[in-house]
Amino acid sequence: MTLTRVLVAPSGFKECLDTTEVAAAIARGVHRAVPDAVVDRMPLVDGGEGSAAALAAATGGSVVPVEVTGPVGDPVRAHVALLGGSAAGTAVVDMASAAGLSLVPADRRDPTRTTTAGVGELLLAALDTGCRRIVVGCGDSGTSDGGAGALQALGARLVGPHGRELGRGAAALADVVELDLSGVDPRLADVELVVAGNTTNLLTGPHGVARVFGPQKGATPEQVELLVTAMDRWARVVERACGTEVAVLPGAGASGGLGAGLVAVGATIACRFDVFLDDALTGQSLDELIAAADLVITAEGQLDAQTPHGKVPAEVARRCRAAGVPVVALAGTLGEGWESVHGMGVAAVSSIVTGPMSLRRAMADAAPLVSAAAESLVRAVLVGFDVQTGGRRAA
Amino acid sequence: MTLTRVLVAPSGFKECLDTTEVAAAIARGVHRAVPDAVVDRMPLVDGGEGSAAALAAATGGSVVPVEVTGPVGDPVRAHVALLGGSAAGTAVVDMASAAGLSLVPADRRDPTRTTTAGVGELLLAALDTGCRRIVVGCGDSGTSDGGAGALQALGARLVGPHGRELGRGAAALADVVELDLSGVDPRLADVELVVAGNTTNLLTGPHGVARVFGPQKGATPEQVELLVTAMDRWARVVERACGTEVAVLPGAGASGGLGAGLVAVGATIACRFDVFLDDALTGQSLDELIAAADLVITAEGQLDAQTPHGKVPAEVARRCRAAGVPVVALAGTLGEGWESVHGMGVAAVSSIVTGPMSLRRAMADAAPLVSAAAESLVRAVLVGFDVQTGGRRAA
Repeated sequence: MTLTRVLVAPSGFKECLDTTEVAAAIARGVHRAVPDAVVDRMPLVDGGEGSAAALAAATGGSVVPVEVTGPVGDPVRAHVALLGGSAAGTAVVDMASAAGLSLVPADRRDPTRTTTAGVGELLLAALDTGCRRIVVGCGDSGTSDGGAGALQALGARLVGPHGRELGRGAAALADVVELDLSGVDPRLADVELVVAGNTTNLLTGPHGVARVFGPQKGATPEQVELLVTAMDRWARVVERACGTEVAVLPGAGASGGLGAGLVAVGATIACRFDVFLDDALTGQSLDELIAAADLVITAEGQLDAQTPHGKVPAEVARRCRAAGVPVVALAGTLGEGWESVHGMGVAAVSSIVTGPMSLRRAMADAAPLVSAAAESLVRAVLVGFDVQTGGRRAA
Repeated sequence: MTLTRVLVAPSGFKECLDTTEVAAAIARGVHRAVPDAVVDRMPLVDGGEGSAAALAAATGGSVVPVEVTGPVGDPVRAHVALLGGSAAGTAVVDMASAAGLSLVPADRRDPTRTTTAGVGELLLAALDTGCRRIVVGCGDSGTSDGGAGALQALGARLVGPHGRELGRGAAALADVVELDLSGVDPRLADVELVVAGNTTNLLTGPHGVARVFGPQKGATPEQVELLVTAMDRWARVVERACGTEVAVLPGAGASGGLGAGLVAVGATIACRFDVFLDDALTGQSLDELIAAADLVITAEGQLDAQTPHGKVPAEVARRCRAAGVPVVALAGTLGEGWESVHGMGVAAVSSIVTGPMSLRRAMADAAPLVSAAAESLVRAVLVGFDVQTGGRRAA
C-alpha cells in the first residue's frame, strides 16, 4: 500500500515563488517519494499580490500591463489579468498592484494621504477589454482611503464644504459632504463587479479598518484618529449616494475600505476564498480534488499565529477537515506561533530549510528546497504506513 | 491506532547538545505528538569528543578531571570517565579530550609535530583509579604520531640512530630504530585495554592514516610524505617490539595511528560500535530496544554524504533495517549529499531549523528546535496511519 493520489494546493511564497511554481516544486518532491502516485496540482491565491497573474497562468489567460497612478502619486506598472478557459470574460485585478503597501516607500507610509486612484484606473483598463465581470482582489494594501481615490478615477466627484471638490487621500474625507456619482463611467453598469476580500474587515467601529490596519500602514495614533473620523463620515456619504449601508457591512473595510467605495458603483463584496477557489474561476474544483486525495499538501511562505485567520492554508485545512482528508503544510519559515496551525487541522508541518542559512540563500534555492522538503514530508507519512501495517511483525 | 513505543537513539550535536540532551529533547517532542507512547531513550556515542562524559552520565558513573599535555605541548584539561551500574570497573577516555583537533590552534596544525602524550597521561590517571578495563575512544583526533607520544608517557623509550632517544611527534618516527617497552607502567599488564575506533582506518598503505587524514589535520603534501615514511617505519618497529603486525591491522590507523601504538602495550582494537553500543557498557541493549519499538528516531548534528560511512545514524539504521523497524532522523543541518542517508535505510529526515536563521541562533535554541522537529516528524508519521486505515472512507 502506498499513497495513490496526492493533492498539492499551496499559496505562493511572497517575493520568491508564485503559487504555480510552488505547486510544481512540491509535485516534484512528491513524485520522488512516490513515483507512481497521481499528483493533482491546484495553485491557490487569496487576492494578494500576484493573484491575478497566477490565475491568468492557471487558466491559460493573459496579462495586460497598465501604467497607473501609484499610492503616493508616482506612476506604477500594474496589470489586468484576462482569464482563459471556462473563466473567459472575467478580468482580475490585484488592488495591491496599483495601491499595495510595497509600492509605498517606507518614509511615505502615511495612510491619510495614500490613494487608490490607480485601482480605479485599472478598472477602466479592465472595462476597455470588454470583459463581462471584474474581480478585484484585496490584500497587501497600502491605502486607507475608503476607495475614494478609485471612485474619483472612475469619474465620481467628492464634494466638500461650500461645494469645493476634494482631492485624494483619506484626510480629505473628514470634510466630505457629498459623493457625486453622476460622472462615473457608464460601462460599469454593464459588468459584474466583485470585490473579493476578507469579509471580517469592517469600515468603521472599534474593529474598523482605521484602528486595525492603520498602524500597520504607518499611521501614527493621531493619524489613526483622523482616519476613524474620515471613515465614519465617508460611510454616511456613501450610504446617502447609493442607498447601501456600508458602515458595518462585512468586507466593506477590505483593503483600507476599498470595498465600501466600490459598493457605491454597484460592486458586491464576497469572501475572497468563495471567489478565488470557485470552480468557475479556477477551472477545477478544490473540494472534488480534496475528496479524491489520500493526502493534501498546502504551503505558504510563512506559517505563524496569523495563519489561522484567513490565510490559504487555513482555508485548505478547513475544507480538508470537512472532507476527512489529512493535510500537511510546508513553509519557508515557521514563525512565532506556528504551532497554532495544528489547531486548525494541519496534521504536520515542515520548514523547507535544511539547516542554518540566510534568508537570501533560502529564497535563491527556494524551488529545490521546497521539492526536498515535500519529499521528506511524504517519506515521513509513508513511514506511518509501515508502522500501521506492521508488515515486519508478520515477517 | 497510534504509536505505542518509540525508541530515541541519537548522537550528540557537536559543540551544542550532548547525546543525553538530544535524546531528552527528542523525547519531549515525541510525547507532545503521542502523549501515551512509551518513549525509550538510548543516547549513543561513537568515541568522539564527549563520549566518555556521556557514558558516565548514562550509567550513573563519575568523571575525574585530569590535566595533561595537549597535542601541541600546552597543558589541557581532560578527564577520565568511571562508568557506573553494570559497567562499573570500566574507565573510558576520549583521545580527543587530550589530543583532539579542536585543541590544536589553527596556525599550529602540523601533524608531524603534534603528540598523543596526553593520552598516555590519561591512561596513567585511569590506572590510578584501580579500574579493571580501560576503553580509549577514538575520533576527532588532531595527531598522527602512531600513538608514540602515548607510549612515551606510559614509560616507553623511542630509540633513534646511535642509541639517541627520540622526542615527541611523528617526524621523529622517520628515524626510529627501536621501541623499548621495558619501562612501561607494569599496571597496564593487569587491565584490559581496548581501543574503540573505526576499524576501516589503517596505519600504512594507500589508504593509510597519513594520506587519508593527514590533510584534514593540516599536513602539507610534503608533510604527508614525511608521515607516510614515518608510519611505515613505525609499523616495523612496533611489530619487532611486540610481535603483532600493525601495518594493515584493521583499526591500527584509528586516531592518527594511536591504535597501532597501544597494540604495543597489549591493547586490542575493536569496532567502536561493538564497544560503545555493547549492552555491558551501556546497561541497555540497543537491539532489544529496537525490536520493541514501532519507530526509531536517531539524530546527529549534521547528516551528509559522510554519514553512511560509520556515523551513529548509519549504525542505528543498519540495526533497524535488520530488525525491520522504521527509522527516521533529525539533524541540525542537512549537508551536501544528505540524501544518501535514504540509501542506508533512514526512511525520512528533517532539519531542526524552522526557517532562515544563523548558526548561532540555531545552536542557542537547539533543544527546543529539536523537540519541535521531533514532534513534527512524528506527526507526519501519524498522518500515514490516517491514510492507511482510511478511517474517513468508512465515515
